[in-house]
Amino acid sequence: MNDAPFVLETLDDGVLTLTLNRPAQFNALSRAMLEALLAALERAKTDEAVRAVVLAGAGKAFCAGHDLKEMRANCTLEFQRDLFALCTKVMRTIMTLPVPVIARVHGIATAAGCQLVATCDLAVAADVARFAVSGITVGLFCSTPAVALSRNIGRKPAMEMLLTGEFISAERAQTLGLVNRVVAVDALDDEINKLTDSIKAKPRASIAMGKSLFYRQLEMGIDAAYQLASEVMACNMMHPDAQEGIDAFIEKRTPRYQHTPAPENVV
Amino acid sequence: MNDAPFVLETLDDGVLTLTLNRPAQFNALSRAMLEALLAALERAKTDEAVRAVVLAGAGKAFCAGHDLKEMRANCTLEFQRDLFALCTKVMRTIMTLPVPVIARVHGIATAAGCQLVATCDLAVAADVARFAVSGITVGLFCSTPAVALSRNIGRKPAMEMLLTGEFISAERAQTLGLVNRVVAVDALDDEINKLTDSIKAKPRASIAMGKSLFYRQLEMGIDAAYQLASEVMACNMMHPDAQEGIDAFIEKRTPRYQHTPAPENVV
Amino acid sequence: MNDAPFVLETLDDGVLTLTLNRPAQFNALSRAMLEALLAALERAKTDEAVRAVVLAGAGKAFCAGHDLKEMRANCTLEFQRDLFALCTKVMRTIMTLPVPVIARVHGIATAAGCQLVATCDLAVAADVARFAVSGITVGLFCSTPAVALSRNIGRKPAMEMLLTGEFISAERAQTLGLVNRVVAVDALDDEINKLTDSIKAKPRASIAMGKSLFYRQLEMGIDAAYQLASEVMACNMMHPDAQEGIDAFIEKRTPRYQHTPAPENVV
Repeated sequence: MNDAPFVLETLDDGVLTLTLNRPAQFNALSRAMLEALLAALERAKTDEAVRAVVLAGAGKAFCAGHDLKEMRANCTLEFQRDLFALCTKVMRTIMTLPVPVIARVHGIATAAGCQLVATCDLAVAADVARFAVSGITVGLFCSTPAVALSRNIGRKPAMEMLLTGEFISAERAQTLGLVNRVVAVDALDDEINKLTDSIKAKPRASIAMGKSLFYRQLEMGIDAAYQLASEVMACNMMHPDAQEGIDAFIEKRTPRYQHTPAPENVV
Repeated sequence: MNDAPFVLETLDDGVLTLTLNRPAQFNALSRAMLEALLAALERAKTDEAVRAVVLAGAGKAFCAGHDLKEMRANCTLEFQRDLFALCTKVMRTIMTLPVPVIARVHGIATAAGCQLVATCDLAVAADVARFAVSGITVGLFCSTPAVALSRNIGRKPAMEMLLTGEFISAERAQTLGLVNRVVAVDALDDEINKLTDSIKAKPRASIAMGKSLFYRQLEMGIDAAYQLASEVMACNMMHPDAQEGIDAFIEKRTPRYQHTPAPENVV
Repeated sequence: MNDAPFVLETLDDGVLTLTLNRPAQFNALSRAMLEALLAALERAKTDEAVRAVVLAGAGKAFCAGHDLKEMRANCTLEFQRDLFALCTKVMRTIMTLPVPVIARVHGIATAAGCQLVATCDLAVAADVARFAVSGITVGLFCSTPAVALSRNIGRKPAMEMLLTGEFISAERAQTLGLVNRVVAVDALDDEINKLTDSIKAKPRASIAMGKSLFYRQLEMGIDAAYQLASEVMACNMMHPDAQEGIDAFIEKRTPRYQHTPAPENVV
């Protein structure tokens, strides 16, 4: 035991970096780690100074998934149910956060670590990073990671990863759609900065409305999806920052956004 | 103001080409443009002479999306809601048209222009064409384009395009699944002709039944999807053109289709 | 007529190979063939000795789809409805089988033959294999194959295949997500053995729970999907083989799985 926090938080010019900090355990997602991550995300949710979140890992690995030792030491159905409910809450909080969350994958991402990558809005990987949903190699099929993975990549490659537990390369992960960009490990932060700079140049409310709409409409049939998206578009258009953005575009000048909050009915 | 129609219509041997015709405005989708496009599509819907529709753009661009000046000049919630309802009607009409609609993308396709490409059944792009859902760069997240885009390409690349507003190349669009084929701009019409010739060689009713089934079954769970698809298959098999097609295949001769309409209960 | 069975069955060290055996008819799926395949799959379902199923074709083709001559000779709505109901039952039985089903595609896979490939959990193709949903070339749109195909690959390439009926190469099929691996025809069995060896090294119950969860959660919204997946994870964790697998991992030894059946409430 030491007193280092499970999740390190640094806010730098609007970008909140959350670093999973159990390097000796490859950032395994113990209950305490998940609780710390959830708390950090909940704080980010209401902090207007945060414009983007970067999820990173300390040490060699990005994240090796759940803490198998802890799970085995607490082998009751109740403990497991609580653990996966907590883990799901973390995943859903990432998806419902009003700002984009970017996975910074510098090393291996396995099982629930791979699920974190799949759950983030964007993911940038080092070329040395590798990905697996490897629970099946110890007899524990990655069922919860499968929910996120199968919503990012095709059925056949998802099934292959889940049944074999084998690693795929960062390049393959990009081809499949699991990560957005792959760069040398030295260039990882620069590449992520490009994305966060791009996000910070846009109005906070427009991003919040759009991200929320994106995941909600994916759950709907096409008519309901268009009905909701049309309403979000109309509300987005009535927002002062969109009107400033369009005026600046028409007048060929730089927009001055005020980052007024989004109306509550569409986020 | 001039008197040129917003949408040019030419019917050539079964192929109806609809050309968006506001070249000086990069074919921006003003209300009048959307109404003209909807009217042309509605006419095509009931014209048995039309076997395929090609959607093209006049001038340098394919389509730059909504008309931001008009939207800004009519900045009431009511106007915006009506506009996006009209736009959705255009998109849904493309999807429910009994003949395939092919996007002919020779230049940029942005925002609702990119949505048009995503909505068409097929898309052929020139290698110089570029694609973006760029509304977010003026503070207006492309929520309605997101509905079509996210049903064509993976979540991660869709989110990246929507959050950054950045352009992707035609080649990248093909890799992601947004367009079917990429050719030199000189070869664009030849490539589209290959597709329309292929479509015209098939019975009209079989295409109509199949296209309708395709989009409807995508909205369903697998059991309901198979139930509907099985019924469509059985009805397709009872259609005289399918029977002629199969007989011709068995007898190793060219089929003589009569293009009898499809039964109304399965389209 | 001869007395050769429609489906050959060989069980070799846990791997059941089912070979479609109408080589002169390119393994066309007549009623009798579908009934034989269904019966073989039903037997596999309850045979604990079977750890994986390989679906193969005798002769030059993998499978050329339905038997058009038989369909044409029995051209009543009732026959067609029964045929597609039976075909759907075969497809659904593959998906609900407790062990993985791997398509071994050495030659052409067309129409319902392509649907079989799309329906299997995994698919390995020879580089000379080719794929098409070619019904439309005889006026019979591949509506039921479309259900499986559109759940494997993107809308645009699926639509192109369905509307044109054209063949795609094995390489293209892999790029699109229809097959997992492509190898020289000589290497086909070795490549499949790698997959079946990998599957056999895992507990039977974990695979069964995971496969069942995978397809069910794809039909659900994200919250319901996570709720079900969490329950499956918790039950998987309480299974003796998972506990043995994790203990062996922690103790750095080889696990000794007992392949106890999965609890009935989660498969």
